[in-house]
Amino acid sequence: MNGADRLCDALLVNGVDVCFANPGTSEMHFVAALDRKPQMRCVLGLFEGVVTGAADGYARMAEKPAATLLHLGPGLANGLANIHNAKRARTPMINVVGDHASYHLQHDAPLTSDIEGLARPMSHWVGRATGPDDVAQTCAAAYAAAMSTPGISTMILPADAAWSEAKDTPLSPTAIPVPEAISADALKAAVAALRSGRKAALLLAGGALREGALVTAGRIAAATGASLFSQVSGRGERGAGRVYARPVPYPIDMAITALADLEVVVCIGGRAPVGFFAYPGKPGVLLPPGCEVVELARQGQDLAAALDALADALNAPREKPATSGWTARDLPRPTGALNPDNISLTVARALPEGAIICDEALTSGGRYAVLAPTMAPHDHLPITGGSIGIGIPLATGAAVGAPGRKVVTLQADGSGMYTVQGLWTQAREKLDVVTIVFSNRAYAILQGEMRNVGVNAFGRNASRMLNLNEPDLDWVSLAKGMGVEAARATTIEEFMDLFDTALKQSGPFLIEAVI
Amino acid sequence: MNGADRLCDALLVNGVDVCFANPGTSEMHFVAALDRKPQMRCVLGLFEGVVTGAADGYARMAEKPAATLLHLGPGLANGLANIHNAKRARTPMINVVGDHASYHLQHDAPLTSDIEGLARPMSHWVGRATGPDDVAQTCAAAYAAAMSTPGISTMILPADAAWSEAKDTPLSPTAIPVPEAISADALKAAVAALRSGRKAALLLAGGALREGALVTAGRIAAATGASLFSQVSGRGERGAGRVYARPVPYPIDMAITALADLEVVVCIGGRAPVGFFAYPGKPGVLLPPGCEVVELARQGQDLAAALDALADALNAPREKPATSGWTARDLPRPTGALNPDNISLTVARALPEGAIICDEALTSGGRYAVLAPTMAPHDHLPITGGSIGIGIPLATGAAVGAPGRKVVTLQADGSGMYTVQGLWTQAREKLDVVTIVFSNRAYAILQGEMRNVGVNAFGRNASRMLNLNEPDLDWVSLAKGMGVEAARATTIEEFMDLFDTALKQSGPFLIEAVI
Repeated sequence: MNGADRLCDALLVNGVDVCFANPGTSEMHFVAALDRKPQMRCVLGLFEGVVTGAADGYARMAEKPAATLLHLGPGLANGLANIHNAKRARTPMINVVGDHASYHLQHDAPLTSDIEGLARPMSHWVGRATGPDDVAQTCAAAYAAAMSTPGISTMILPADAAWSEAKDTPLSPTAIPVPEAISADALKAAVAALRSGRKAALLLAGGALREGALVTAGRIAAATGASLFSQVSGRGERGAGRVYARPVPYPIDMAITALADLEVVVCIGGRAPVGFFAYPGKPGVLLPPGCEVVELARQGQDLAAALDALADALNAPREKPATSGWTARDLPRPTGALNPDNISLTVARALPEGAIICDEALTSGGRYAVLAPTMAPHDHLPITGGSIGIGIPLATGAAVGAPGRKVVTLQADGSGMYTVQGLWTQAREKLDVVTIVFSNRAYAILQGEMRNVGVNAFGRNASRMLNLNEPDLDWVSLAKGMGVEAARATTIEEFMDLFDTALKQSGPFLIEAVI
Repeated sequence: MNGADRLCDALLVNGVDVCFANPGTSEMHFVAALDRKPQMRCVLGLFEGVVTGAADGYARMAEKPAATLLHLGPGLANGLANIHNAKRARTPMINVVGDHASYHLQHDAPLTSDIEGLARPMSHWVGRATGPDDVAQTCAAAYAAAMSTPGISTMILPADAAWSEAKDTPLSPTAIPVPEAISADALKAAVAALRSGRKAALLLAGGALREGALVTAGRIAAATGASLFSQVSGRGERGAGRVYARPVPYPIDMAITALADLEVVVCIGGRAPVGFFAYPGKPGVLLPPGCEVVELARQGQDLAAALDALADALNAPREKPATSGWTARDLPRPTGALNPDNISLTVARALPEGAIICDEALTSGGRYAVLAPTMAPHDHLPITGGSIGIGIPLATGAAVGAPGRKVVTLQADGSGMYTVQGLWTQAREKLDVVTIVFSNRAYAILQGEMRNVGVNAFGRNASRMLNLNEPDLDWVSLAKGMGVEAARATTIEEFMDLFDTALKQSGPFLIEAVI
C-alpha cells in the first residue's frame, strides 16, 4: 500500500466515489491506485476546465463533493476558472493536484510552478501532503473543509508521497464541524424588521432556494407581506407548485429598479446585492440608500433552520403558501421567429418533471426566468461566478450526479466554445443531456456593454473582437467531431421538433439554434 | 483621451502593434480605445489559452512582444498554462488583464478575485495601474521588463483607470536596460574547461540556438572537440547548412546515456539539465556525477556575444564549420504503415525552405529530431514548459508573426484538444498553417509512464483515463466546425498526397493522420 492507495481509501471512506480527471505523469501512481479501486468512478475530461466544471455540477446535484485529478500547476490553472464559479456557488470540491517528488522541486524542472500560489485565490482551503503517512490525514482535512465551508479544498500530492510505502492504519469517516447556530440578536433584528411595517424583502441564496426552505420563506412572506428575492446560487428548485423568489436582475438598471422601494432586507445565505460590474456614475450597491440590511444567516450555516426559526418567531401560519399551477404546458405553441423568447417557451412547454436546467444562456435566456415558476418542477443550475465556459461541463457533472434525470443546457455560443471539449465526455459517459446552443455568432453581452459605454458604431477592431462570425461556427460538426448527435434549427418549428426528439432519446444531443 | 487610449499609445510607441484578445465587460473601454487605433491588429481567440499561446508564437517569430487582452482573474487563469510555457521559453509578452473599477473591489462582486496572486506564479513582472495618468508609465515598465528579462509582464488595468480622463502628455519609446556582460571569470573558466582535455560539451539554449550563434558554437566545437547539445528553447534554427546541436533527449534513461561520458559542460543560455520528472531510484540531475558545470551566460544576456567572446578567447578558426548537405529531399518515398516515422519522413522530404515547425508531437515526433539537420532550413518552435495545449495556438501566433512563411504544426491529439479553439482563429485570419494531428486516440505518453511505474495491464479506470477512444475524436469534423479545411489519412500514400496539397494551398488545412 502506498500513499496514493491511502488517498483513494480516504476519499472512499467519506463517500467520495467520483473522480473527474485529467492526469499527467506526476499522477501516475494515483492513477494506478484508482485502477485498483473499481468502486471509484473515474470520468475523463479532455481539458481541465471540463473536469472542474463537471465536479461543480456533480456536487450541486449529488450534495457531496467529487474529487478532481489535475496535473501540476498548469493543469490546476486550466481548471481555475470553473473552480472560481464553484467557489462562488459554495460547491464542495476536493481538487487533487499532483506535484513533482518533493526532492525534485529544487531542480526547477520545466513543469515546476508555485501550486499553492495558484490555488489560493480560488480555494477556501489549500494543503500539501508531506509524505505517504499524512496523505489520509490531509485528505480528511480537505474533505472536512469542503463540507463545512462549504467550498473548495485543493490538496497537493507530491509524487513521492503518492508512490512511497504507507502504513495501512484503519480509516474512519471524517467528522464535519457542526455549523454555527444563527445568533439570537440577528433573529431579533430580522423579526423587528419584518414587523416594522416598512417595505421588506427576504433575500434568499444557497440552500434557502431549495424546495423546503422556499416553503418556509413563502409562509414568512404570507405572514408579513415581505417580498422574496433570490440571488444567483448554485442550485435553485423552481417550477409549478414551488414558492417563487424573484431573481435580482443582472442588468444594473433593472436591478436598481426592482429593489428601489425596499426599506429593509433580511439576507439568508447571501449578502446585500452588488453590481456585477461597476459602471461610471452608477452605484455599486443595488439597494436604495438608507435601506437597512439584516444578515440572518450566511452560507455554511443551516439556512432552512434559520428560516424555520424566523417563521416560528413570527408565528407564521403553518399553511403551505399559495403557488402557481403548472401552466406552461397549456401555453400556445410558439410561432414566428426562432428567437430566445420562443426557444424558452418551447422549453417551458416540454420540459419533463425533474429535469435539470444548466443555464449559461446569458443574453439568450429569453423568457425563461419569467416562465420558470410555471414550468414542470425542475432544478436550475446557473453560472455563479461570471467565469464563462461552465455550461457544458456543469451539465456533464450534473448528469453524473443525478442519473435518471434529464439535463437541458441553455448554452450561449461564445461561452460554449470555452469548454466545448465537455461534449466528448457526455458522449463517452452516455449522459442524458440536451444542449441548446444559442448561435447568435457574437459576444452579444459585450455588444450591449459597448453600447453601455457609449460606443454604438463598431470599427474593425471592435467588430472583430465582439463578433464570432467569419467564419461562422458550425456546432453540428463540432458535436459530431466529439461523438454527440446534433442537428441545426433555423425555424421555431424545426427547433420544436428537434427538442421533442431530443427529450424522447436517451444520451447526449445538441441542437444548434441559429438565432 | 482616457486611460485606455494611453495604454494603446504606450504599446504602439514601443512597436507593440498586435493584440491577441478575449475581452469582457471590464475591458470595454480598452476595446473602444483599440477600435480607435486601426494600426493595432486585434486578433480574437475563442479561449484565453489560444490568446496567450498565440502571443508566445508571435513573439518567438517577430522578436517583439504582443499584447494580450484578458478578462479579470478567470480570463487570466484560462491563459496561464500557455503563459507558463512562454515563461519557460523566455518569450517577451505583455498581458493586459482588466479588473473591476478600483472602488468596486470592496463589494466582492462575483467576478472579483486576487489577480496579482494568480499572475505572480507565471509572470516575471506584475503591476497595476492606479489611475488613468499612470497607465502609460505602468505599460512602459511592463514593456521594459518583458524585453530585458526577457519574459512575462502582467499588467492589471482597473476599469476606472481605463475609462477616466487622462493627460495627453507626449510618449517616447521605452529604454530597455542593457544586458549584463558576461563575467571575465566565467569566460576564463569556460576556456580552461574546453582546453582541459576532458570530455566537454557546450549546452546551448535560447538565443544560442539561432543560426549565427550556432555557427560560432560550431567553430568552438571544431577547435576544441567539444560536443554540442541543445536544451528545449523557444526557437531553434535547424536544417541543412546549419550547425546541429543534438537535443538532450526527453526520456530520462536516454538523456542519462547521451550525457554519460561528459566531464565538463559549458552552459550558454541554460542550466545543467534536469529530469523533466522525478522517477523512483533515478537521479534528478542528468549529468554524470562529478561533471563540472560552467555557466558562461544566462538568458537575458547576449548569448551570441558570449559565444563570440569564447571563440575569440579560444582563437577558434574563422572558417564556417562543416554541416550536412540538404539531403532529406533525396530520401526515398516512405512506404508501408502510416506511423510517426513515415510521417516525419514525409515532412522532411517536402518541407519548404523557411517553414516554421510548431512541435507538440510528444510521442508522435517519430524521426523528426534525427531528420531535422537534413531538412530544408526551418525554425523549430517546441513546447517549452510541458504544459500541453500549445501547438495550435503557437502556430496561430507564429503565422501572424511571420507572414509569408509556411507553418506546419506537429500536433498530438490529446494535447490538441486542450486548445482546439485556435483552429477558428486560423480560419478567420486566413493563416497559412498546416496542422498534422497524430490521431493515436490515447494519452500515449502517459501509457508509457504507467509502464514506467510498473503497471502493464490497465483496468477500467486507468484505461478510461489514458485512452481517448469511445468515442473516437473526428478531427475532420472538428476542423470543419471551425471553418478549417481538413481531411483524414489512413495510409501513408493518402498522407503524402494530403501534405502536398496542403503545402500548395494558402490558408489553414488540417490532416488527421490516424496512426
